[in-house]
Amino acid sequence: MSHNTFGHLFRVTTWGESHGPALGCVVDGCPPGIRFTLKDIQDELDKRKPGQSRFVTQRREPDEVKVLSGVVTDDDGETLISTGTPISMLIENVDQRSKDYGEIARQYRPGHADYAYDVKYGLRDHRGGGRSSARETAARVAAGAIARKIVPGLVVRGALVSMGTRSIDRANWNWDFIGSAENPFFTPDPASVQVFADYLDGIRKAGSSVGAVIEIVAEGVPAGLGAPIYAKLDQDIASNLMSINAVKGVEIGNGFEAARITGEENADEMRMGNDGTPLFLSNNAGGILGGISTGQDVIARFAVKPTSSILTPRKSIDKDGKDVDVMTKGRHDPCVGIRAVPIGEAMVACAIADHYLRHRGQTGRI
Amino acid sequence: MSHNTFGHLFRVTTWGESHGPALGCVVDGCPPGIRFTLKDIQDELDKRKPGQSRFVTQRREPDEVKVLSGVVTDDDGETLISTGTPISMLIENVDQRSKDYGEIARQYRPGHADYAYDVKYGLRDHRGGGRSSARETAARVAAGAIARKIVPGLVVRGALVSMGTRSIDRANWNWDFIGSAENPFFTPDPASVQVFADYLDGIRKAGSSVGAVIEIVAEGVPAGLGAPIYAKLDQDIASNLMSINAVKGVEIGNGFEAARITGEENADEMRMGNDGTPLFLSNNAGGILGGISTGQDVIARFAVKPTSSILTPRKSIDKDGKDVDVMTKGRHDPCVGIRAVPIGEAMVACAIADHYLRHRGQTGRI
Amino acid sequence: MSHNTFGHLFRVTTWGESHGPALGCVVDGCPPGIRFTLKDIQDELDKRKPGQSRFVTQRREPDEVKVLSGVVTDDDGETLISTGTPISMLIENVDQRSKDYGEIARQYRPGHADYAYDVKYGLRDHRGGGRSSARETAARVAAGAIARKIVPGLVVRGALVSMGTRSIDRANWNWDFIGSAENPFFTPDPASVQVFADYLDGIRKAGSSVGAVIEIVAEGVPAGLGAPIYAKLDQDIASNLMSINAVKGVEIGNGFEAARITGEENADEMRMGNDGTPLFLSNNAGGILGGISTGQDVIARFAVKPTSSILTPRKSIDKDGKDVDVMTKGRHDPCVGIRAVPIGEAMVACAIADHYLRHRGQTGRI
Amino acid sequence: MSHNTFGHLFRVTTWGESHGPALGCVVDGCPPGIRFTLKDIQDELDKRKPGQSRFVTQRREPDEVKVLSGVVTDDDGETLISTGTPISMLIENVDQRSKDYGEIARQYRPGHADYAYDVKYGLRDHRGGGRSSARETAARVAAGAIARKIVPGLVVRGALVSMGTRSIDRANWNWDFIGSAENPFFTPDPASVQVFADYLDGIRKAGSSVGAVIEIVAEGVPAGLGAPIYAKLDQDIASNLMSINAVKGVEIGNGFEAARITGEENADEMRMGNDGTPLFLSNNAGGILGGISTGQDVIARFAVKPTSSILTPRKSIDKDGKDVDVMTKGRHDPCVGIRAVPIGEAMVACAIADHYLRHRGQTGRI
Repeated sequence: MSHNTFGHLFRVTTWGESHGPALGCVVDGCPPGIRFTLKDIQDELDKRKPGQSRFVTQRREPDEVKVLSGVVTDDDGETLISTGTPISMLIENVDQRSKDYGEIARQYRPGHADYAYDVKYGLRDHRGGGRSSARETAARVAAGAIARKIVPGLVVRGALVSMGTRSIDRANWNWDFIGSAENPFFTPDPASVQVFADYLDGIRKAGSSVGAVIEIVAEGVPAGLGAPIYAKLDQDIASNLMSINAVKGVEIGNGFEAARITGEENADEMRMGNDGTPLFLSNNAGGILGGISTGQDVIARFAVKPTSSILTPRKSIDKDGKDVDVMTKGRHDPCVGIRAVPIGEAMVACAIADHYLRHRGQTGRI
Repeated sequence: MSHNTFGHLFRVTTWGESHGPALGCVVDGCPPGIRFTLKDIQDELDKRKPGQSRFVTQRREPDEVKVLSGVVTDDDGETLISTGTPISMLIENVDQRSKDYGEIARQYRPGHADYAYDVKYGLRDHRGGGRSSARETAARVAAGAIARKIVPGLVVRGALVSMGTRSIDRANWNWDFIGSAENPFFTPDPASVQVFADYLDGIRKAGSSVGAVIEIVAEGVPAGLGAPIYAKLDQDIASNLMSINAVKGVEIGNGFEAARITGEENADEMRMGNDGTPLFLSNNAGGILGGISTGQDVIARFAVKPTSSILTPRKSIDKDGKDVDVMTKGRHDPCVGIRAVPIGEAMVACAIADHYLRHRGQTGRI
Repeated sequence: MSHNTFGHLFRVTTWGESHGPALGCVVDGCPPGIRFTLKDIQDELDKRKPGQSRFVTQRREPDEVKVLSGVVTDDDGETLISTGTPISMLIENVDQRSKDYGEIARQYRPGHADYAYDVKYGLRDHRGGGRSSARETAARVAAGAIARKIVPGLVVRGALVSMGTRSIDRANWNWDFIGSAENPFFTPDPASVQVFADYLDGIRKAGSSVGAVIEIVAEGVPAGLGAPIYAKLDQDIASNLMSINAVKGVEIGNGFEAARITGEENADEMRMGNDGTPLFLSNNAGGILGGISTGQDVIARFAVKPTSSILTPRKSIDKDGKDVDVMTKGRHDPCVGIRAVPIGEAMVACAIADHYLRHRGQTGRI
Repeated sequence: MSHNTFGHLFRVTTWGESHGPALGCVVDGCPPGIRFTLKDIQDELDKRKPGQSRFVTQRREPDEVKVLSGVVTDDDGETLISTGTPISMLIENVDQRSKDYGEIARQYRPGHADYAYDVKYGLRDHRGGGRSSARETAARVAAGAIARKIVPGLVVRGALVSMGTRSIDRANWNWDFIGSAENPFFTPDPASVQVFADYLDGIRKAGSSVGAVIEIVAEGVPAGLGAPIYAKLDQDIASNLMSINAVKGVEIGNGFEAARITGEENADEMRMGNDGTPLFLSNNAGGILGGISTGQDVIARFAVKPTSSILTPRKSIDKDGKDVDVMTKGRHDPCVGIRAVPIGEAMVACAIADHYLRHRGQTGRI
């Protein structure tokens, strides 16, 4: 990736910190004539909005998006139509409370980028993690809402499949449950809610935190997107997901499991389907073979580390090189992986939209 | 990534197929005055060269590299000095035997990109996998040999840490053993050689194949390389590793394990070191926090799927949409993960060299 | 250029139309620790602001810039310090009067991009030229104000050297006169003001328009920026200048004159200067030889076509393919070249800042 | 441009110096299924080949191109079909005579990049100008030969329209004459041959050199290529042309003339044509309005400075900072502008091919 821009034809540039007046993004290269509403974007943003349950940060941010350019309004007064020029979106920061961070401005919090930042830039905006703040991800979600509109028939959904030592039961997988009001975890398994809630309450009350694994499934991805060895679709999905804060691992299809099994077990066999396209008998590949989509569901998973802001004191040093013990107060997610679900969806949608346009550009075959 | 080029300031463009006359790469943006010899490059290439044991493909390729531009020769007649202009390197294909592939030209081999290729491009060079062939990776290794010279003090090494269901014992880790003549597996654990040999002999004789996990460790990476959320060092390492054929997963530091543990367990505590830089008490982060290197060893792992070319017949279809059973003869690696070790090293070295130059460009702090 | 982003390490992405709520830019890759004030940016913006004399459009726009990210405020409460993260700047559109454009929404104005837009995008925001509006250039000027701070000692100045058939007398060149209150033309020749005023009054009253030639001079450009044949400094300056609306030609140094003279006349001879750097005896090259800066002043000129919006009816067609005669009312600059001076300065400053960082990145020699 | 790569979807990376073993390029992003022959490329290369008349350098180079990747051969054994993967082309350097350059290895030739090179890189390959050699342009011409095949119906032709103080008579313009055996100048005006020959013989015998202006005309460019203000088609054409050695100016359509005339004179009026597309009554715009092609011929001109290698001694300095007088012997073109004609064609063709794919990618409207 080049700086804070990602994508090659569908390009997203994000900007903004946790404690500045606003954050946002510029979506460049959107095809003309794409129709969407503010509500389409807002609905996505609301999914990752803080303060919606006791399991996420209590920071109160309405995350209301403004579209400043790149669209005309249709006669209905609501539908926006992209003109093909850059779409600028802006979200104001409302609940900043920068005093919360005052006491740790000079300390290097373990697990955070504080020390690395200071070495790199020589100065940093310590408030709320500055550019590293999870708030930046709102811009990605807004961009992803537009990306979703570009590939006809594309549906990108995500689910939390494990949290710390607890996992879902895949036999219970129910996509419809994820939007349910009783589901603060983006889990597809109704039976897991109580398990996760009890587990995370314990973590939260202990001032601790825990990681999670998220799975993203993209249906309706046409075969042919990507390239054999560079500009691979899976590579750009992995890159996009790894660009999310706190992500430490990514896998496509069966991922690391593929390293443990044999060629016979791993190969997805095919038969000719009734509709003239192949019928795959399994999907270990996660919908991508040799970097190119096959028409199967594209499946990716990523690991989110536990929030580094915890109440338990940890050994560290400060800017003067003195040994200190750091304890991070403030309003933090006990499991940042929860709100990573819509972010992961957005990043996968952006990668697919970009490759859709690139494939059309190079081959004209869509 | 943009097409077949990767990197932003240290840029590598590769070209070539398995069965054309040659393959190669152009390394652009190399600093002037970098000194290296043909032997430096050849030594790296020899590590991934086929035909060196019964556990890798028996294709015979000398993989002799030519440097066609971008250097002047020093007075010793051997040392090449980069001039700052593009370095073009070329490796001829010698042992092509394209007849081996004749019978499966019209079949879509399960696990291979054949079907996806045909959908994407409408035609393909079926010989040896065309552009998807593992032979292309020789170009990466050549580029990586130069990348290694750019960051003073950088050492990038790789090891195979598991193969199928067998793993090394980390207590036995010995980097020096990896170059040993009795070690056809790039394993750092001497005790594992017999285990892997027996296991892979069984796989090989059964006409089967198996996957592997590779770990890359980069020492001497200065703190400050990367960026907070995009152009993250870990993201570009992940992207580079995912661009290698057959890779299905990547993790940094403790990777997916981070999703299973708490913030207290995961945080790498610090104390002030005697040399004026922090002493980290652990390295769960894999040397990268918030996308920026910390000065610790940078650690990445990637999962390689089993070779899809196997002797056991698998169900598939052909170009005419007829159901067929595919059996792939020819000279294939029973575990392509073995030769992926030097490739992974090269890709990590390229990412680090690129970020070293980018960091110097933006900040002037190196 | 890639879409609406230019630059490689110092990257600028602009967005916004004439008649949306706002326009702006994201400056990415700015080194950390660059100090500037809002006034530094505002002063540049004020130079290109409309409505400052009868010779430019009467649209009233305060063009007040907001800096939304990428900076911290120094203890003085005024100085902004870049943090190394993206700097987002926003300028609101105030005086939009979109009704002015109603009547020509369906006509293709000759000399404008109306027809080409419709072919390309299938729809367009006709208000004020949409994305092609000269208002977008405010974003460039804001970005240029930051670019000017990056290269120590850099001074970039511009001058209008001809307008239609009238030209300045170079013997009278006085940089200090350009900022003078009696100088609405950015001319460096005090004697030319009356000439240009009389000439342009005639043009303006006739409802006509006229073109201009602008010259940009950058002093303090260190030797060594650029590259031999691609990524040439002059090439990127030319590209940046050609990206400005209505520009139809660019030249470096003596430009097209070089094609008319001999090698003896054109060569800039050198002698060793007292300060250890070469003393060039002339500057036909415009400070750039073989794509690389020599330490002399960098000189570029560009030709701006006459405003296409004129009162004289011109033959054209409309969206329905009917022949029409088009007359463009509204508030237009009779010579858009005047306000192009600060824009040209900004684009040259951005190119130089980018190459400064790129040179430092590749070679470490700054 | 990014280093030695240009183009966004149709990307060309060139490499090689005058005195290395070879030079070449990698064409990446070519659509699959493009059909061409080696002769198609060779014919273009032969146009710029040295040694074809007394008016160009006497260096003897067959400039025979090899295609090393990215194609399959059709059943006729001659037609190459692109596969969509990178096309690598290589041209060997045969007639190198590096001793010619020995005596000036330590001198900075006026008008050459010698001094700038040394400042930038700290070392340089002085033989034949190193990377700045005109030989590199062979790679561009080879890439351009493929670019020409991508846009259906595209014809790109160039002509020398002036040489030093002599110009063609446009009333005599005859494209067919340019390929004529009696025409060593790429002039479209038969009457000019004797004028140019006498003039250049004088220049040549005096050991001098002279500049030239080249005009490139692209017919068959579909309307809609480019973008309003960045990624303008004219901007990328200007960038591509300015990347050619010795080019000091570029103009589109009437170029600098547009700055001298009024809006009424400059506007290209339209009427509805019989074929349902607009009939433009003039082409001052050079086929591009607001950065987007209109369907008219695309017209660009560029100024080439006189060869800096001349026999007349010029004042300069050497690497030790001593004043010297430099006289450049060797085999040089008295007017490098002549052989710049096919190079300019190639660069324009590459820009158009790239924008054709980009337009298709973003809009799907081709």
